[in-house]
Amino acid sequence: MLPVVTSLREHFGPDRVSTNDTVRTQHGRDEGIAREAPPDAVFFARSTQDVAEAVRTCAAARVPVIAYGAGTSLEGHIAAVHGGLCVDMSGMDRVTEVNTGDLDCTVEAGVRRIQLNEHLKDTGLFFPIDPGADATLGGMAATRASGTNAVRYGTMRDNVLALTVVLADGRVIRTARRARKSSAGYDLTRLFIGSEGTLGIITEVTLRLYPVPEAISSAVVAFPTVGDAVDCAIETIQMAIPVARIELLDERQIAACNAYSALDLPERPHLFLEFHGSPPSVEEQATEAGKIASTHHGDSFEWARTNTERAKLWKARHDAFYAALALRPGSMGWPTDVCVPISRLAECIALTEEDLDETFLLATVVGHVGDGNFHVLFVLDPSDERELAEAERLNPRLVDRALSLGGTCTGEHGVGVGKIGSAAKEHGEDTIDVMRKIKRALDPDDILNPGKIFLPQ
Amino acid sequence: MLPVVTSLREHFGPDRVSTNDTVRTQHGRDEGIAREAPPDAVFFARSTQDVAEAVRTCAAARVPVIAYGAGTSLEGHIAAVHGGLCVDMSGMDRVTEVNTGDLDCTVEAGVRRIQLNEHLKDTGLFFPIDPGADATLGGMAATRASGTNAVRYGTMRDNVLALTVVLADGRVIRTARRARKSSAGYDLTRLFIGSEGTLGIITEVTLRLYPVPEAISSAVVAFPTVGDAVDCAIETIQMAIPVARIELLDERQIAACNAYSALDLPERPHLFLEFHGSPPSVEEQATEAGKIASTHHGDSFEWARTNTERAKLWKARHDAFYAALALRPGSMGWPTDVCVPISRLAECIALTEEDLDETFLLATVVGHVGDGNFHVLFVLDPSDERELAEAERLNPRLVDRALSLGGTCTGEHGVGVGKIGSAAKEHGEDTIDVMRKIKRALDPDDILNPGKIFLPQ
Repeated sequence: MLPVVTSLREHFGPDRVSTNDTVRTQHGRDEGIAREAPPDAVFFARSTQDVAEAVRTCAAARVPVIAYGAGTSLEGHIAAVHGGLCVDMSGMDRVTEVNTGDLDCTVEAGVRRIQLNEHLKDTGLFFPIDPGADATLGGMAATRASGTNAVRYGTMRDNVLALTVVLADGRVIRTARRARKSSAGYDLTRLFIGSEGTLGIITEVTLRLYPVPEAISSAVVAFPTVGDAVDCAIETIQMAIPVARIELLDERQIAACNAYSALDLPERPHLFLEFHGSPPSVEEQATEAGKIASTHHGDSFEWARTNTERAKLWKARHDAFYAALALRPGSMGWPTDVCVPISRLAECIALTEEDLDETFLLATVVGHVGDGNFHVLFVLDPSDERELAEAERLNPRLVDRALSLGGTCTGEHGVGVGKIGSAAKEHGEDTIDVMRKIKRALDPDDILNPGKIFLPQ
Repeated sequence: MLPVVTSLREHFGPDRVSTNDTVRTQHGRDEGIAREAPPDAVFFARSTQDVAEAVRTCAAARVPVIAYGAGTSLEGHIAAVHGGLCVDMSGMDRVTEVNTGDLDCTVEAGVRRIQLNEHLKDTGLFFPIDPGADATLGGMAATRASGTNAVRYGTMRDNVLALTVVLADGRVIRTARRARKSSAGYDLTRLFIGSEGTLGIITEVTLRLYPVPEAISSAVVAFPTVGDAVDCAIETIQMAIPVARIELLDERQIAACNAYSALDLPERPHLFLEFHGSPPSVEEQATEAGKIASTHHGDSFEWARTNTERAKLWKARHDAFYAALALRPGSMGWPTDVCVPISRLAECIALTEEDLDETFLLATVVGHVGDGNFHVLFVLDPSDERELAEAERLNPRLVDRALSLGGTCTGEHGVGVGKIGSAAKEHGEDTIDVMRKIKRALDPDDILNPGKIFLPQ
């Protein structure tokens, strides 16, 4: 490892490579509870060519290299489980191109989503994918992130037109052009999206943008039970009402948000909804959704009347994780993440609630229920091993339940270290073997974020 | 090759494997003008296990194996350029599962799109992707097909949830679950979509479905020039009007359609449009689109008043290729296929029209202009070598133009044999090298549809 540090310091100057303990620790830890492992050194990249040089240097020495965006991943994606060099992408934060006429833009991988939308403010366009955390676009692409808006706008899979990627030998490729569609060969864009830095390091992302809707309305609606709220969400999707957001928060999560985000909602399960479109279309969607809610015993919609109220509502939703943690000062959170076909969602959540009713753990449920995706947030006392053990007992039950209902072990967080076993169970050995063969073909020395997604065999 | 035929006949009976010349010729020829090459034998598969057995047999003998759907590809995708076994998938025509509650279905690869929509008729759901030809869903997935509805519903890339694939060694994998989204490892679904049978043979496809829109309205509108029609399409997209279809037909194509499909349109460039949604939403979209058309010197919209009229209109659009051929009995057609960022579409089409004004060839222009995708249809006399030579001079000019404008050499037809050089130019050597490495990793003996997408190096 030392020769890599020496070589990069010679090339870029001493300030660009840190071996400081604090810096290393910070770069080996994400926001989840899966494994932490500090890299041996951290390199601060400023350009694609910098990343290419770092990867070439690591390749020559067969040293692992791990891309780091904002550190907001949840399954130990950035843990340097075999040591090596962390490439911090936060200095690559330029929006390099906005093509308003094509509704697209190109950003360096270290640009964060809030920064991008600030940048786009005067164009009348926005980028909808919103995983809650203020993640980097490179990291979001690498984990195939999504979030609250996915029900309407899709995930990172659907909203990336092209990538610039540094390969394991330091070569730089562009995966596609800016055309909206293409049949010109293998879909390398989609292959790198969700590959978690194991096949290449994404350094630039070309994104689809959308016009800011003429009208946006947000509402909350309370239900007597989680089952009623979920049934309402299912019917809304099955009736093809094009909601932009439809989020479940259970009664415990509502209590947490009331306290943390100064809301004043009844402590019952809620859906948070948002409608985008022309004023008459939003009106129409809201009316239809309201009818469906009332057939599932929902209260009438409480509307966010102003932009400020709307912003407060969604900030509260985004802060749900921190709100849950605040229920118990000093706690650590474990957000699980499964996704099932929507017709099985009610069953999956009901069975999960039974588990939660029986456990001694503190936990809330939030979900992007329009996609069939939900999270149990375990709020754990880090000093109590029994609590972690209990969460470790319940999470596989949740994953198995989702798989048995035709779902996936992770809707949007990714595999990282934490879900290697679950992904193997989901896909089976032959499918994992295809992934492994691709990995070996593109990274024969296993230097790119090794130890993630699947076992090396 | 003979041992493969013998072995398959022993296993499946003599009727399931044909070496008849007519059958072989028919299975080595698609609807384009790129290379034809008959396979040595044709195997009629009835199940995934049949395909697996055929591939295992071919793998053991290192004999090429090429999947065949409906033979409607356009770039020589199914030509057995190195001989081998053609696996005819048309007997795999069962719709195996329709999940109305999840808006999805699973079909065998040989199911055709019209058959699927007939099957779905009573469910209130439909599958929107519509490449014109009545292709198989397996073939559409393998070529990443799209067509008229892509501007609203996306392409095969966006509408496949999972695939069953037979690998080069005969193993069978499932690429994903039915959940709407997942971050569980590499996106193998998208890798196989558009891989043209070179990485595996798709035997089952799980598709997203959509509710049949409450209201559907179709209209045609004539413009003084192609430029005006294109500018109208561009502005419609930039204003984010969610048109379901927006198709360009130039004046020559309109003349051809008038004659072939008994239309009665003025011989001027037209847009064919369709709007999907609730009645008020369709009304609103149509009003907005009509305003835009009038600012670009469009006539007023002519509406298809009945379902019959609407069906006739889109049948005419789908038959555009055959209509162009009918302009000149005995001719053969060469449909080109480029796609550019929409802001460059007017320029790309204008320069292409200059070429067409200067050439002695008969040619029409049609386009899925909402996606930036259009086709020049050359109508050639097969006995006149000068005509083919002239088309061969003009097509690379078109491809180069699209590439220089940030576009792709193929929006929806694929690479096959015909566009290997264009794809290499588009991607560059390093990107093609990544594709080649993946191919070698998954098909080391190069038995799966060899000679397609890229040169073996």
